[in-house]
Amino acid sequence: MQNFTFSNPTKIIFGKAVVAKLGPEAAKAGKKALFVYGGGSIKKNGVYDVLTGALAKEGITVVEHHGVKPNPVLSHVRSGIKKARENNCGLVVAAGGGSVIDEAKAIAAGAKYTGDVWDFFCGKAGIREALPIFTALTLPATGSEMNSGCVVTNEGTAQKFSAQGAPLFPRVSVLDPETTMTLPKAQVANGAVDSIAHLIEGYFTTKDADAAVTDEIVHALARSVIASTERILKDPSDYNARASMMWSATLALNGLASCGYGGMNFINHAIEHALSALYDIAHGAGLAIVMPAWFKHHLKTDGPARLEKFGAGVFGTRTAGETIKAFEAFFRKAGAPVRLSGAGIPAADIPRIAENALGLIRMWGMKHEQPEIEKILGYAK
Amino acid sequence: MQNFTFSNPTKIIFGKAVVAKLGPEAAKAGKKALFVYGGGSIKKNGVYDVLTGALAKEGITVVEHHGVKPNPVLSHVRSGIKKARENNCGLVVAAGGGSVIDEAKAIAAGAKYTGDVWDFFCGKAGIREALPIFTALTLPATGSEMNSGCVVTNEGTAQKFSAQGAPLFPRVSVLDPETTMTLPKAQVANGAVDSIAHLIEGYFTTKDADAAVTDEIVHALARSVIASTERILKDPSDYNARASMMWSATLALNGLASCGYGGMNFINHAIEHALSALYDIAHGAGLAIVMPAWFKHHLKTDGPARLEKFGAGVFGTRTAGETIKAFEAFFRKAGAPVRLSGAGIPAADIPRIAENALGLIRMWGMKHEQPEIEKILGYAK
Repeated sequence: MQNFTFSNPTKIIFGKAVVAKLGPEAAKAGKKALFVYGGGSIKKNGVYDVLTGALAKEGITVVEHHGVKPNPVLSHVRSGIKKARENNCGLVVAAGGGSVIDEAKAIAAGAKYTGDVWDFFCGKAGIREALPIFTALTLPATGSEMNSGCVVTNEGTAQKFSAQGAPLFPRVSVLDPETTMTLPKAQVANGAVDSIAHLIEGYFTTKDADAAVTDEIVHALARSVIASTERILKDPSDYNARASMMWSATLALNGLASCGYGGMNFINHAIEHALSALYDIAHGAGLAIVMPAWFKHHLKTDGPARLEKFGAGVFGTRTAGETIKAFEAFFRKAGAPVRLSGAGIPAADIPRIAENALGLIRMWGMKHEQPEIEKILGYAK
Repeated sequence: MQNFTFSNPTKIIFGKAVVAKLGPEAAKAGKKALFVYGGGSIKKNGVYDVLTGALAKEGITVVEHHGVKPNPVLSHVRSGIKKARENNCGLVVAAGGGSVIDEAKAIAAGAKYTGDVWDFFCGKAGIREALPIFTALTLPATGSEMNSGCVVTNEGTAQKFSAQGAPLFPRVSVLDPETTMTLPKAQVANGAVDSIAHLIEGYFTTKDADAAVTDEIVHALARSVIASTERILKDPSDYNARASMMWSATLALNGLASCGYGGMNFINHAIEHALSALYDIAHGAGLAIVMPAWFKHHLKTDGPARLEKFGAGVFGTRTAGETIKAFEAFFRKAGAPVRLSGAGIPAADIPRIAENALGLIRMWGMKHEQPEIEKILGYAK
C-alpha cells in the first residue's frame, strides 16, 4: 500500500427534496451567482424552479448561463467567464450532470485568473483560486460533484483535456435521487459505465496490488453500481436503486477508490476522450467501447491476476476471460455499445483516434505510444 | 435509503514516514500547542521524537500533557484544559490511539468553553468551538482521527459518556502504519473488534434496510478488517496488512459506513461502556463480549435477514446462526474474550451492568429498558 493523502472538503446533502437546501448554503458565499445549466432538462424535472426559488429566497441574484453541451466546450466556458466577470458574480451554482458541473468549475477558476482558462487544461498554469462552487446533481456519473477535476473540449483543436485543483472542490453539493427518475435509458447506461470506468482505472493500473482495503471498496462500489443499474432497468421508479446508484457514482471518483494505489493512469479515459473529441459521443458510451478492448490488452501485458480478483469480488467469475465477458455483458445489458461499430465509428479511423489520444496521454505524463493505442483499439473493432 | 448529510473536512496523510508532516500542518494553526499523549508508548516507537522534532522545527512551543488512560478520565481532561488555558495554547496535538485523541478533543472543546467540560457529555451544552486539533494515530481502532466524537469516563459517577460536534473534526491526522508494528497482540485484537463494532451498529439497527451501497461498503470494510487482522496475527511485520487495517478502522467510523441508514443506535456500545466504566476493561474486549450476545437477541427480535446478508457478504455463511458463530470465531482467533467470564466479570453483576448502561441509553435517546439489557447480557454468561 502506497502513501496517500485524502482530503475532501465537499459537503454532501443527499436524499429526497434536498435541492432547496442549496439556497442557504450558497448564501454563505455571496449574493450574486452565475447559474450554470444545460439544455433545459432541469426545467422539466422541477429542479430549475426549486433551485431558483431557494436562491431568490436567500436574496441571491442569479445571472443565467445555460446551454452547456454534454461534452462542454471551451467557447462556452469562455463566455461564462465573461458573464461572471461582467456581473461581478461571487459564486457559481451549477445544476445538471457532470458536464454542467465541469463547465461551472472551469468558469469558477477562469473568472479568478488573468490569463486564458485553457492554460489550466494544457498545463500552462495551476489553479490557485476559484469562485466558490455549489452544485445540484441530476445525473449520477462523473463524480464531479465531490471532486476537484473538470474536463472541457477545445473545439478549435479537437482536444478533450482536464484540469484539477483543490479550489475546484464544490463547497456543497445536493444530490436528490428523485431528480434522476426521468433520465433517458441511454443516460442511465452512460452513468453506470462511467462509474465503472472510474473504479477500474486505479484498480487495474495501480503500482501496488496490495492495497487490500481499497480493492474491497472498489469491489463494493462496482457491485453496487451494477446491482443498482439492473434494478433501475427493471423499474425506473425504484427510488432506493436510484439512490444507491447516485451515491456509488459519487464515491467512485471522490478519491476513496484509489487510496494506496500510488501511481495510477487513466488510459481508458485518455482513449475515450479522443472518441468524444472526434465524434462527440457520450463519455459513457465511449468508455464501454474502450474498456473491454483495453482489458484484452491488459490481460496480454499484465496477466490475469487483477482481472481474476476483480471478477471474483464483483461478478463471481473465475477466469480473466470470464471477467471481461461479464463486463461486456453488463455494458450490453445497460444498452451501451461495446464495439466501435456499435457507435458507427469506422475501424479505418483507428490511427486517427490513437493520434488524438496521444495528446492527452502526453499531457497526463503517461508512457504509451501510438502502436500500442492502435493495438488496444484493434480489440474494439 | 434515508436522507443524509456527509461532510468530513479532516485531511488524512497516510503511509510510511508521514508523522513529521504534522509539523507544517500544525504550524498553520498556531505556535503554542498542548501536546497530549498516553503512557509513553510513543517514546518507544519513535513517534515522540519525530513529532516533537517536527513541531520544534516549525517554531511551535509544546506544553506536554501526558498520562492519558486507555479509558480517558474526566479529571485528567480537566487538568489538560487548565494547562491549555494557563499556557494560552492555540492548538492541540495528540499522538496515540483513540483514547488520547478523544481526550485531546475534550480538552480542545473545554478550553474554549466557560462552563464545565462534562456539560458536553451529559447533554447540558453543545460544542460550538474548539482549539484546532491535529493527531498522529498509532493504534487503529476508534476512528477518532477522522470523526467529530469523543468518549470520556467520569470516574466520580462511573459514567462513560460521549460528546460530539463539528469543531472536533481534526484538521489533519497523520497515519503511519509502521507505528503500529509494535502493538501488543491484545491491542491488535481490541482494535479489530472495535472497528467491527462500528460497522455493525449502523448495519443492524438501520431504519432502512435498502441502503444497498452502504451495505456493500460495510461488507467491504468488515472483510478488510478481518483479513488484515488474520495477516497481522500470522506476521506482525506485514506492512500492507497493517496499512489496510489502519485505513479500514478510520473508514469504519468516519460517517461513510452509515450513509442512508437513517436513525441507527449504538446499543452494543452503550452496554460496553458500562463494562468499561465499571471494570475498566478495554473497549474492544468489552465489545467482543457484548456483540455476540446482542446478535442472539437481535435474531429473536428482528429475525435472520440482516445477519444472513452480512454473513453472506463477509463470512460466506448461509444462516444467521452461522454468522454469529463466525463472529465469535473471529473474536476468539484475535484473542478477545467472548463471554463475561472470559474477562473475569461475574454473571451476578448483570443487573448492575444493565443499570449503568441505562444511563447512556437514556442520554442517547434510545428505547431500551433494564429487563431487555439484562436479557442481552444473559447471552454473554
